[in-house]
Amino acid sequence: MEDGQTGAFAAALARVGPADAAAMAEAVALDRRLTKPAGALGRLETLAAQLCGIAGTCPPPLPTPAAVAVFAGDHGVVAEGVTPWPQEVTAQMVANFCAGGAAINVLARQTGSRVLVVDVGVASPLEPRPGLALRKVAAGTGDLATGPAMTIAQATAALDVGAEVAAELVADEAAALVTGEMGIGNTTPAAALIAAFTGRSPAEVTGRGTGVDDHTLAVKVGVVERALALHGAAIAAGPVPTLAALGGLEIAALAGFVIGGAAARVPVVVDGVIADAALLVAAALAPDVLACCVAGHRSHEPGATAALDRLGLAPVLDLGMRLGEGSGACLALPVVEAAARLLREMATFDSAGVSEK
Amino acid sequence: MEDGQTGAFAAALARVGPADAAAMAEAVALDRRLTKPAGALGRLETLAAQLCGIAGTCPPPLPTPAAVAVFAGDHGVVAEGVTPWPQEVTAQMVANFCAGGAAINVLARQTGSRVLVVDVGVASPLEPRPGLALRKVAAGTGDLATGPAMTIAQATAALDVGAEVAAELVADEAAALVTGEMGIGNTTPAAALIAAFTGRSPAEVTGRGTGVDDHTLAVKVGVVERALALHGAAIAAGPVPTLAALGGLEIAALAGFVIGGAAARVPVVVDGVIADAALLVAAALAPDVLACCVAGHRSHEPGATAALDRLGLAPVLDLGMRLGEGSGACLALPVVEAAARLLREMATFDSAGVSEK
Repeated sequence: MEDGQTGAFAAALARVGPADAAAMAEAVALDRRLTKPAGALGRLETLAAQLCGIAGTCPPPLPTPAAVAVFAGDHGVVAEGVTPWPQEVTAQMVANFCAGGAAINVLARQTGSRVLVVDVGVASPLEPRPGLALRKVAAGTGDLATGPAMTIAQATAALDVGAEVAAELVADEAAALVTGEMGIGNTTPAAALIAAFTGRSPAEVTGRGTGVDDHTLAVKVGVVERALALHGAAIAAGPVPTLAALGGLEIAALAGFVIGGAAARVPVVVDGVIADAALLVAAALAPDVLACCVAGHRSHEPGATAALDRLGLAPVLDLGMRLGEGSGACLALPVVEAAARLLREMATFDSAGVSEK
Repeated sequence: MEDGQTGAFAAALARVGPADAAAMAEAVALDRRLTKPAGALGRLETLAAQLCGIAGTCPPPLPTPAAVAVFAGDHGVVAEGVTPWPQEVTAQMVANFCAGGAAINVLARQTGSRVLVVDVGVASPLEPRPGLALRKVAAGTGDLATGPAMTIAQATAALDVGAEVAAELVADEAAALVTGEMGIGNTTPAAALIAAFTGRSPAEVTGRGTGVDDHTLAVKVGVVERALALHGAAIAAGPVPTLAALGGLEIAALAGFVIGGAAARVPVVVDGVIADAALLVAAALAPDVLACCVAGHRSHEPGATAALDRLGLAPVLDLGMRLGEGSGACLALPVVEAAARLLREMATFDSAGVSEK
């Protein structure tokens, strides 16, 4: 953390700690008294215990309202032809998010969550708008196939932005955080990071993103292969140099955001392949961050499964989604809320007068 | 449908029809204009099209508020030692449902759904209570290991109760229906029905239900084997005789309920292994019922997967749940709602000024 020792990210990193084992044990004991067979609620029971471990209390607080931070950034690697979408779509989608018309807006409204869009690296200048935080670190990254995507200072600044946004949202009453992002071309840096952190081959972890054709997929795999070869020294130097060499400004911000959420002891519901790549960075720096993270869904992208396997996380949903924006994670929020509600509201065998086996 | 030609079930059965293909095509066309890559919402896109096919309009109506019907019945097969839970728990859980303390109550409150408990076959007499419909057909079933669980007349009467309850709930503003049930011992008749309708072996489709030990599991498998041998003639005679021989009063009511929901053209979100068994019966009588059904989740019970495979249904959730009551289906409601909302509320490329690839 060369440049970040005094920044928001470094401060948050120092505060990340393990789950509260006593509260988790209380959750298991309470669960056993509820009017249902032991284990019958499956994943909801482990989620409920995790929520207790995060908050340090049993039953846990409700994870509502949640806040979705959509970090937006552009990518120099689009020069390699890794996507058929024009780069201007990143800024156009920022406008769509601010106007409430994107998928994440619909899903956030349904779950009573706020959406904060954060410009951490959009190529074009953006005007101030309600719901948009102007925190640009740089106007996009460099092309990771030919040089580092970011300097260490840029990566650290983006980590700080993410940690600061997490702290601000929690201070503003968010009881859970949802990772969101937008960045044309960002499945390529995500694949590069996942290859670097999991040791899988580029071909295994690089997918079709928004639905590219066979030719473009081959281009993406080739770009990731070249990037890994080019940046071997950075990869060997540690998580932050790896992030700087291969990542993106919104990916760095997401890594800071999950660390910030864990430092604030709130559940962080992690979206798809871009967020999974960011979580690999965060977990390499602070393994305890996983105590506060819920993998909201399994993205259709192959790198997502590689990352989740490496992290030991089982996704809540598996619906073949590959949109990003935080959409899959937001859709998982009702399941996380249900886990908390069941532990808080269900009757016990004693209180309901139900016989046990 | 020997005795049911003039009943509610037979009338509903006659009204079940296919999905509206034109509305589904409109959904696909609208989806392609929304501000996201084609296909990026995965299962939500097929769910949205299904909702249009059910309602015959695009975009579809919201599936809220939903109503959960929890059909309760007892089972003579408990005499065989298929469960460690005392039969009185069925009635005790009915009281718990009415008092709002069970898992399904918590999940229904979270989703803004009402819960109607229906006594269609509880062994003991139940007093009138708010939220409880007294529609008892018989005070439990016979032991399917030694004789038919129900007479044809009882099965038909329970089918009628289910169809009537569906119609009543839809008339009372339910925009979607959720299948729920409670009946100590009911994973054994469900396994018998699933074996009969899928051709799988009893050992393949019989599970641990509420968590029985190895000995009790072996007893359950043996009971299902004996029942299939004993009731070969009924199984050969068709779906309703099979249901009568092997089923349960709440299972018959669930079969009527899904047919009633399909007749009313509302989405029916189907819960776990007990509801899956009922759906096998319903689909055998009216294959078009599946156009209106959403498999809410994959129960941990092996018979659930066998039934879903046979029906060609992919579950929305897969969370290792095995509680019943409608819990898994109710938990899937926000995903179904999201599918409708995305099609109704998302901006198009044109309206948002977003470039296409």
